Amino acid sequence: MYTEPTTFSAEQYFATQLPPPALQHDVESVREFVARQQKEGRAVVLVTSGGTTVPLELNVVRFLDNFSAGTRGATSAEYFLKAGYAVIFMHRQFSLQPFSRHYSHSTNPFLDFLDIDSPESQGATPRISVTPNKREDLLQVLTVYKEVHARGTLHTLTFVTVNDYLWLLRAVSQEMSVLKRRAMFYLAAAVSDFFLPRQKMASYLVSSFASEHKIQSGKGSLHIEMDQVPKILKPLVDEWTPGGFIVSFKLETDQNLLLPKARQAIERYGHQVVIGNELHRRKFEVVFVSKKPLPALPPGIEQTDEAILQAVDPTNSFSEYWLRIDVPEHPAPGFLVKEIEEDIVDELVKRHAEWIANTP
Amino acid sequence: MYTEPTTFSAEQYFATQLPPPALQHDVESVREFVARQQKEGRAVVLVTSGGTTVPLELNVVRFLDNFSAGTRGATSAEYFLKAGYAVIFMHRQFSLQPFSRHYSHSTNPFLDFLDIDSPESQGATPRISVTPNKREDLLQVLTVYKEVHARGTLHTLTFVTVNDYLWLLRAVSQEMSVLKRRAMFYLAAAVSDFFLPRQKMASYLVSSFASEHKIQSGKGSLHIEMDQVPKILKPLVDEWTPGGFIVSFKLETDQNLLLPKARQAIERYGHQVVIGNELHRRKFEVVFVSKKPLPALPPGIEQTDEAILQAVDPTNSFSEYWLRIDVPEHPAPGFLVKEIEEDIVDELVKRHAEWIANTP
Repeated sequence: MYTEPTTFSAEQYFATQLPPPALQHDVESVREFVARQQKEGRAVVLVTSGGTTVPLELNVVRFLDNFSAGTRGATSAEYFLKAGYAVIFMHRQFSLQPFSRHYSHSTNPFLDFLDIDSPESQGATPRISVTPNKREDLLQVLTVYKEVHARGTLHTLTFVTVNDYLWLLRAVSQEMSVLKRRAMFYLAAAVSDFFLPRQKMASYLVSSFASEHKIQSGKGSLHIEMDQVPKILKPLVDEWTPGGFIVSFKLETDQNLLLPKARQAIERYGHQVVIGNELHRRKFEVVFVSKKPLPALPPGIEQTDEAILQAVDPTNSFSEYWLRIDVPEHPAPGFLVKEIEEDIVDELVKRHAEWIANTP
Repeated sequence: MYTEPTTFSAEQYFATQLPPPALQHDVESVREFVARQQKEGRAVVLVTSGGTTVPLELNVVRFLDNFSAGTRGATSAEYFLKAGYAVIFMHRQFSLQPFSRHYSHSTNPFLDFLDIDSPESQGATPRISVTPNKREDLLQVLTVYKEVHARGTLHTLTFVTVNDYLWLLRAVSQEMSVLKRRAMFYLAAAVSDFFLPRQKMASYLVSSFASEHKIQSGKGSLHIEMDQVPKILKPLVDEWTPGGFIVSFKLETDQNLLLPKARQAIERYGHQVVIGNELHRRKFEVVFVSKKPLPALPPGIEQTDEAILQAVDPTNSFSEYWLRIDVPEHPAPGFLVKEIEEDIVDELVKRHAEWIANTP
C-alpha cells in the first residue's frame, strides 16, 4: 500500500492529528504559572530541550529519534534562572534537566559521593554524609536548586514524540502570549523533520507485518516512508504568540551551511534570532544571526516599505555575532571549560531587554 | 540508488562492519574481571540491557531506536548480585543502571531529598543531610551499592549502536567461555532487527540529501531501507561460548504469539531458556520456555538420537513455566508491587545450579 507523501500545513496538522492525553492538564499548569510570574513581574522564557521521537508502530517499540542529550537546554535554563527569568522547561522525557544534569548516573553518579558514617551510639541508625571533596560543589548546586524551588520560578513539562512536542508548543506559546514582549522562546529541542501521520500508521503496519513475514524467510528489509513535519515557526511568530522574542537553533554538520541556513530561516519566519551551531564545535562556538535594525531614514522621507527597501543594502541586511569560548590546546588537569550557554544567555537577556524597551 | 537488501550471516557481518573503537579496551577489562571472579569461585552472568540504535547518518543526528528504559536488566542485575553472582552489566548508554535506577532524575530526583542544615558555628560550612523519611531507603540501597563495589562484583560496559552491541557481545562471550558452565547469559537488551551496513551508508546519504533538497521545495518524504541484523544466538551457543547457560527474551505485543515465537527460538538456536513477555504485562507476567529434558530410555536401549526421538512426544517437547505477580485490583496507598525480576532470577539461579551439577 503506497500513499503519496503529503505536506502538512500547521493548520492541517492540528486538524488531523490527535492531541496528547495530558495536554489539557499541562496547559492549565502553564496558565497558573504564567499568571503568577506576570503578577510578580518576571519575564518568562520557554526553553525546549532534547530530541523528539517518531513512533513507527502503534505499540511503540521501534521509533525514529534525533540525537540530543539535552545539554544545551538544561544548561541554558540554569543561566536564565540565574538572570531572574522564570523558566518553562519543556523537555524530552529522561533528557538532562537543570541542576540534576551535574550528576549524570553514568559519569558522576551521586551514590559514589555519599558515605555511610558509623552510628554515634550502638543501635542508632548510621548517618549518610557527603564525601568531603564533593561537598562544596554539591552545596552550590543544591543551594540554587532550593532557591529556585522556593521562589517557584521553574516549571517542567515533558514530551516524547514529535506530536506531543507540536501540540505542547502551540498550547504553551498561546498561554504565554499574555506576556507580550516579556515572553522569550528558546527553541533548543532537536525536532524531527519527518513524522508518520496516524492515518498512515495503519497502512504502514500492514506493510510492516508483510516485511515481518519476509524476515522469517530470511530476506528482510525495512521500508519507512514518512511525511514532512509542518514548519511551525511561521504560525508561532505570526499567530500563536505575537510580540514574543523568538530564538531558534540551526544545527548543521557542514560549517559552510551555517550562515546560509540561518539567514534563510530568519528570512522565512521573520523571528528575532537564529543561533547557528556546527555539531562538533557547538560547545565552544555559535553564531547569532539576526536581521539588521531598519536604517534611520533621512529626515523628510516618509517611513514607507519602499523607502526602507531602498535604504537597506540587501547583500548586507543580516547581522552576525560570533560567540567563542577559548579552549586551551593543552588544558591543565582539572581545567574546567566555561559553559558557552552562560554567554549565550547573557547576550540574549541583553537583546531581550532592548526588545522590551523598544516596544512600539 | 537502490540496492537489494542483503541478509548477513554473523560471519559476514563481522567481516564487513567495523568494530567500535573502545572494543579492545573493553575486552581487556572483561578478561581481568572474569579471571578474578573465577579465582574467587563466583559464577558470572552477562546481563545485557536497554535498546540499540541504528544510526542513519555518518554524523549521527537521526537514528532508529528500540524502546527500552532498561528496567528489566538493571533490576535483574541487582538480584543476581544478591544471589552471589558476579555481573557484567552491558547496557545502552544512559539506560537505567543497578542501584541508581531507584533515583531517576525524573521521578525520584535525589536533590529533592537532600537538606542543607544550618552550620553549627558561624562561618562554618553548612552540612548536607538526607531528609529523615528518605533515610532508610537510601541507606539500604547505598549499603548494598558499597558492598558490591568493595567486593568488585559488578563490571559495567556501555553500547549505543547495534554495531557496538554485536561486537561487544561476541567479544565478551568469548572471554566468558573459560568459565564454561559457570557462565550465564541474560540477554535482556532490545536489539534492533535491522541495520544500515556502512557500505550502504554512503549511498543512503546521497538519497537523503536528495530528499533534503525536496524538503526545501516543500514536498518531502524520507525513505529508509535497511538490512536484517544477523541472528547471533546460533554462533553464541555453538561457537563463542559453548557450555554457557543462555537465556534470551522474546517481547511480543500479541499475547498469542508468545509461546509459538519462544518455542521457535529454542528450536532454532538450541539454547536453554526463552523468557516470553507481552509488552503490557511484562512487569507481572512472564513465561519460561525450555526444551524438556530427554526422557530416560528403558534399560538395554542404546542412547542414540533415533531412540531418543522415538521416545519424545514431538507435540509435547517444550516445558512452560509461568511466573506471575499478584497485583491487587485496588492497591492500598503506598502499596509496593513486588519486582518480578526477583522471581525470575531465583528461578534461573536454581536452573543454572542444576545445569552446572549435570555437567557431562
